Amino acid sequence: MAYQDSILHPDFKLGILGGGQLGKMLAQAASNWHLPVYALEQDHSFPAGRATPFLQHGDFKNYDDVYRFGREMNVLSIEIEHVNTEALHRLEEEGVKIHPAPDKLDIIKDKGLQKEFYATHGIPTSPFRLYEDENALRRAVAEGGQPLPFVQKTRTAGYDGKGVSIIRSEEDLDSRLLSGPCLAEELVEMEKEIAVIVARNEQGETRCFPAVEMAFNPVANLVEFLFCPAAISAEQEAAAEALAVDVIEAFGLCGLLAVELFLDKDGQLLVNEVAPRPHNSGHHTIDSCYTSQFEQHLRAVLNLPLGSTEMKAPSVMVNLLGAPGHTGPAYYKGLEKCLAMPGVHLHLYGKSTTKPYRKMGHATVVNKDLQQAIAYAKEVQQALEIVSGT
Amino acid sequence: MAYQDSILHPDFKLGILGGGQLGKMLAQAASNWHLPVYALEQDHSFPAGRATPFLQHGDFKNYDDVYRFGREMNVLSIEIEHVNTEALHRLEEEGVKIHPAPDKLDIIKDKGLQKEFYATHGIPTSPFRLYEDENALRRAVAEGGQPLPFVQKTRTAGYDGKGVSIIRSEEDLDSRLLSGPCLAEELVEMEKEIAVIVARNEQGETRCFPAVEMAFNPVANLVEFLFCPAAISAEQEAAAEALAVDVIEAFGLCGLLAVELFLDKDGQLLVNEVAPRPHNSGHHTIDSCYTSQFEQHLRAVLNLPLGSTEMKAPSVMVNLLGAPGHTGPAYYKGLEKCLAMPGVHLHLYGKSTTKPYRKMGHATVVNKDLQQAIAYAKEVQQALEIVSGT
Repeated sequence: MAYQDSILHPDFKLGILGGGQLGKMLAQAASNWHLPVYALEQDHSFPAGRATPFLQHGDFKNYDDVYRFGREMNVLSIEIEHVNTEALHRLEEEGVKIHPAPDKLDIIKDKGLQKEFYATHGIPTSPFRLYEDENALRRAVAEGGQPLPFVQKTRTAGYDGKGVSIIRSEEDLDSRLLSGPCLAEELVEMEKEIAVIVARNEQGETRCFPAVEMAFNPVANLVEFLFCPAAISAEQEAAAEALAVDVIEAFGLCGLLAVELFLDKDGQLLVNEVAPRPHNSGHHTIDSCYTSQFEQHLRAVLNLPLGSTEMKAPSVMVNLLGAPGHTGPAYYKGLEKCLAMPGVHLHLYGKSTTKPYRKMGHATVVNKDLQQAIAYAKEVQQALEIVSGT
Repeated sequence: MAYQDSILHPDFKLGILGGGQLGKMLAQAASNWHLPVYALEQDHSFPAGRATPFLQHGDFKNYDDVYRFGREMNVLSIEIEHVNTEALHRLEEEGVKIHPAPDKLDIIKDKGLQKEFYATHGIPTSPFRLYEDENALRRAVAEGGQPLPFVQKTRTAGYDGKGVSIIRSEEDLDSRLLSGPCLAEELVEMEKEIAVIVARNEQGETRCFPAVEMAFNPVANLVEFLFCPAAISAEQEAAAEALAVDVIEAFGLCGLLAVELFLDKDGQLLVNEVAPRPHNSGHHTIDSCYTSQFEQHLRAVLNLPLGSTEMKAPSVMVNLLGAPGHTGPAYYKGLEKCLAMPGVHLHLYGKSTTKPYRKMGHATVVNKDLQQAIAYAKEVQQALEIVSGT
């Protein structure tokens, strides 16, 4: 039976490791085709728990859980890269189709291997050195082998700004150094930070979404606003998209690849890091593009034709973060005010507990006038407060 | 607690009578806010069965089932008007908030009362007469009291072109007359058929989606294509929207009202009939408008601010109907070809059994160029075939 028919076969199963907000939004996209999404997650209270009736309890970092879950699936994918890849390798040997493939995940989830991959494949990235641990790094600084300032990144488990520390001085070395295997990279003199999400299917077809421009919350080091289109020249846009295609082709990966890029003061593009899945920088596509990043991921991992990545209209995405000082059951204040603004698309993930700066949802403001969208996005951020208790 | 906060309260329950495709798409819209949708439907194999974990088994035409389901809800709404309104009246007396209100449903679900409502409220509609049954109608024709041609409509249970018969001749009287209480209305010399979906909340705020133009399949008498914007003048658009607002205000109804209109050869607008819920003619809004009709219905029945009804881009909607001659388990052929066309948004409802002309899904083609969208929509209709068996 041809693939395009088989995904609608009653017995077809798509498995996703993880049931957080990305898993939820993948399940929502699949729901349009009535495609069953099986998600492996700790329990039903996770965001995907309501979006699919096929959530199975388990730990995506546990070998047995991943293996048992995966062998029932026709196609297996992820919403987070920090999964048990040992089990994925075994499943792959046993014939389960897995996208992105486990050997790519092994590289991407270790920031040291990821940087080495760029270096050996001629992909521009900031210069770096690997260190066994923070003590080796400290010694290198003392011996003059590692100049200040630099960005220290732990090799594994970095997420949402965690696992990254900027070291500018001897003082920072005492107070801000992170422990464990790490790398130190040159601090880039950044003009702006952009991201390009690219998709690739088994046929090798590739498509880029338009570049987005990120603005960070300086306290939480989390993306706060995201603008699309980015305020870059047509040449820079073309170069960024071409680079994203180079990266996904170098990996030979099927699925989505979110490529975070630095545009430095000299106008040079450098790959910061990648994520082989739907990404925060692509949330706006649900409401602003002809195809959402979630549907595109499904198309790519199921080897369907990729969808148009054109924008219907410009957009601004705001992460809705838990208010500082609040930990506990989540309450949403100011919702009505946000819904009264034109073009505001509200996405609440349904996490029962809020924590300071936790991603509880996002809002995408779509508007033919980007400046107007930015103004509304700032109003949304002012109006909506996620607190613990009424 | 303010309403806008309470809908996100863990205990808040929105109930929907019916779990077909409209219930599914309402649940999908609610999922963006992580708002729980409880649906009353026969069993989990219905379209909404996967889109919400809170589907409850029961018959929305049964008094006890509706009453038991409804009294657990904070707000109760519908996806089909042919529900047990006796139970709704009792629930309303007991304080359950119900939108649209049961007394409006009683009028709308009886086409005779609906026509009388228009006549007594000065709403333009084609001239009509009510008949006790088909025999009374036949006698009136014989006695010269009912001129030919006319459109016969049964007073209740009409749906998707059923319950409507065009009687042009004495011969038709013998072969095409429908049985039961009915009305006969003048056959309108139609220029085109359009629909305007209007929303109203408890504050009395109203918003119209842009008018859509319908093209019917002449065999099945089902909407086959739907174009937005409609090919009408700005004055006609304004008049159609004003008329839709007149109708919803005359009813005093909260929620969505889909107003089907005839534009006759003299340029006059006549109300054909209405549906107090999301409607086939509004499916395109999911992919082409700033707010979908499903989110708008939620906003209206929950008394939230109504969303922008502006178009992001022109669109064409195609109903995906079961192929003639096929009854049984549904298989979808040509899916990959459809997905390869730019701007095609595919919505499959997941009905396990296909029947000739059964609505199994829809596709919305979004394109800045409406003519291009129409061309793709025709290709989709050619390419996709829903059959029983591979």
